[in-house]
Amino acid sequence: MRAVLISGAVALLVSLFGTTVFIRFLVRKQYGQFIRQDGPTSHLTKRGTPTMGGVVIIAAALIGWVAALVATQQLPSASALLVMFLMVGLGFVGFLDDYIKISRQRSLGLTPRAKFIGQGLVGVLFAVGALSFPNAQFRTPASTRISFIRDTSIDLALWGTTIGLVLFVLWANFLIAAWSNAVNLTDGLDGLATGASILAFGAYVLVGVWQSNQSCQLLGSVGPRCYETRDPLDLAVVAAAITGACFGFLWWNASPAKIFMGDTGALALGGAFAALSILSRTEILGAIIGGLFVLVVLSDVIQIGFFKLTGKRVFKMAPLHHHFELSGWGEVTIVIRFWIIAGLFVALGVGVFYAEWVVG
Amino acid sequence: MRAVLISGAVALLVSLFGTTVFIRFLVRKQYGQFIRQDGPTSHLTKRGTPTMGGVVIIAAALIGWVAALVATQQLPSASALLVMFLMVGLGFVGFLDDYIKISRQRSLGLTPRAKFIGQGLVGVLFAVGALSFPNAQFRTPASTRISFIRDTSIDLALWGTTIGLVLFVLWANFLIAAWSNAVNLTDGLDGLATGASILAFGAYVLVGVWQSNQSCQLLGSVGPRCYETRDPLDLAVVAAAITGACFGFLWWNASPAKIFMGDTGALALGGAFAALSILSRTEILGAIIGGLFVLVVLSDVIQIGFFKLTGKRVFKMAPLHHHFELSGWGEVTIVIRFWIIAGLFVALGVGVFYAEWVVG
Repeated sequence: MRAVLISGAVALLVSLFGTTVFIRFLVRKQYGQFIRQDGPTSHLTKRGTPTMGGVVIIAAALIGWVAALVATQQLPSASALLVMFLMVGLGFVGFLDDYIKISRQRSLGLTPRAKFIGQGLVGVLFAVGALSFPNAQFRTPASTRISFIRDTSIDLALWGTTIGLVLFVLWANFLIAAWSNAVNLTDGLDGLATGASILAFGAYVLVGVWQSNQSCQLLGSVGPRCYETRDPLDLAVVAAAITGACFGFLWWNASPAKIFMGDTGALALGGAFAALSILSRTEILGAIIGGLFVLVVLSDVIQIGFFKLTGKRVFKMAPLHHHFELSGWGEVTIVIRFWIIAGLFVALGVGVFYAEWVVG
Repeated sequence: MRAVLISGAVALLVSLFGTTVFIRFLVRKQYGQFIRQDGPTSHLTKRGTPTMGGVVIIAAALIGWVAALVATQQLPSASALLVMFLMVGLGFVGFLDDYIKISRQRSLGLTPRAKFIGQGLVGVLFAVGALSFPNAQFRTPASTRISFIRDTSIDLALWGTTIGLVLFVLWANFLIAAWSNAVNLTDGLDGLATGASILAFGAYVLVGVWQSNQSCQLLGSVGPRCYETRDPLDLAVVAAAITGACFGFLWWNASPAKIFMGDTGALALGGAFAALSILSRTEILGAIIGGLFVLVVLSDVIQIGFFKLTGKRVFKMAPLHHHFELSGWGEVTIVIRFWIIAGLFVALGVGVFYAEWVVG
């Protein structure tokens, strides 16, 4: 528990102070955001706000995590390394995207093809790694079973190990792509994605601590059922580091934003969230905990699908938050109301997770 | 656990829809807020915004709680009744205050004397009640011991039962007065007190659920130490109802606020928070969980004390949020940054609470 508090606190402080330094650096270099041209026209005033803030989020989370390892004199576990690898890897793809936008002074960055290849490469390495590194109990960080609040009986390796590995790589990459796109789409209003991330990663701190207390490897663990996960406390430490980093970043990212997280931040956070849900064996529960992100993605999918089918639009603009902007809601109103919705999803997700444990 | 989810969800829905109805009612009756004349001048634009929104928060919390009782076919417990009594009682004092302000069209409501008597009466009844109603194990809702994360060895009844009762009544009333003033002082910017309350009461849902799982009355409870509290799950249900009610209210209370909670809401929430901390035997922990409120009060105390001693001011204006307003921060920036601080206090408080339980 000490490790969880240390990693969260250090990441928070690094991010809180690191972000100001980074903002000054970006402003001096005149690295400002080019606002996407298909957003609401009111967003054109945001032109010039520094972006790539995800760099600080990633750095702060890494430093917080390492500080906790040093303070508790522990070696990094396979699970924690995998989450960090996916976060940093996707963050790097996002960084290239952001950097090209800035240096070429255009709103579009990496080509879709290059982005797909970059994400895929990192995602496949993560997925293969997650089925490697068995610990002394032959437990690997992830399993080929689809998981809800723990591994279910639906096993992708039903038709053999090789097919299982291939299916798992596809499944993991679907989750990674879905989550990183979801955070990226949600990151359209000041502080929206950062605040929702705090709530979602905060929930994973609780999940990890709880799984660690009720691990099947722990003698004295009691209750209806224990959890078969590897390194649950380390996952909580990583989740705390990311939560702390987002907390510090929100200080500057809240309306009026002095910096955006950019694709660097959105892809890194989406990747980390996917990794946590896969390794804590809560893949489906993750869709409840991160329900706001899912809603935002769905609004985009519905808008595009409905438009292709009927030629009509369901929302004034997708993703969802732009719809409300064009409906006349203030930006801050939308952000806070979306946070409320995100908080409700987190409460529901944590409630579902705890439910089987609670008497009455 | 079902009861916790039901009470939270019902309170949320009632508050979400009830608040709009109430706003329309107040606007029709032309019941608007008179802004205190010693606040920042920019606040004069808020004149006319409907107040007394606390009425909806109280009603929604009550309805959510009753709905959970009905759904789980349970009778109300002494502890839950006591929290509700203190919330409704103090809310009523606040309501009188608000109502006088509106009907007499002035910024000051009840006389300090009348307010003191009203609060004291409700507080004494609560404190006496909290030491009555033993259950089958002779456990009363509160105890005369000062509590941190559970009852400590500091017992107010050390010098006899009667002195103990008197000291406990004084101690409980100090906590009640402190918390209701703290929430009231914090309620100076759109959504600030409501958001901070969501975080603080949300923490008490976790505390209650955890205490219920690890109650000393529960067979099979294991771990370092169990909790000697009465009706912990019912306290979680009440906390969930209040959290849900605040959530729904924040939808309308967030910037730009369409309604304020008024003294009705601030006194009710402060009272409920004090009651939860007393009955869950976490009186000192409560000051960490509600750390933001404590900070705001301290800023006021420091400002007044320092001014009386030296004739100089520490802050440009107290309480703290007005200091930052006069320092040029935007209202929304202050609110979100204060929520961040509130969230950190809650994380610290919950961390301290769980700490003894966690391996590693």
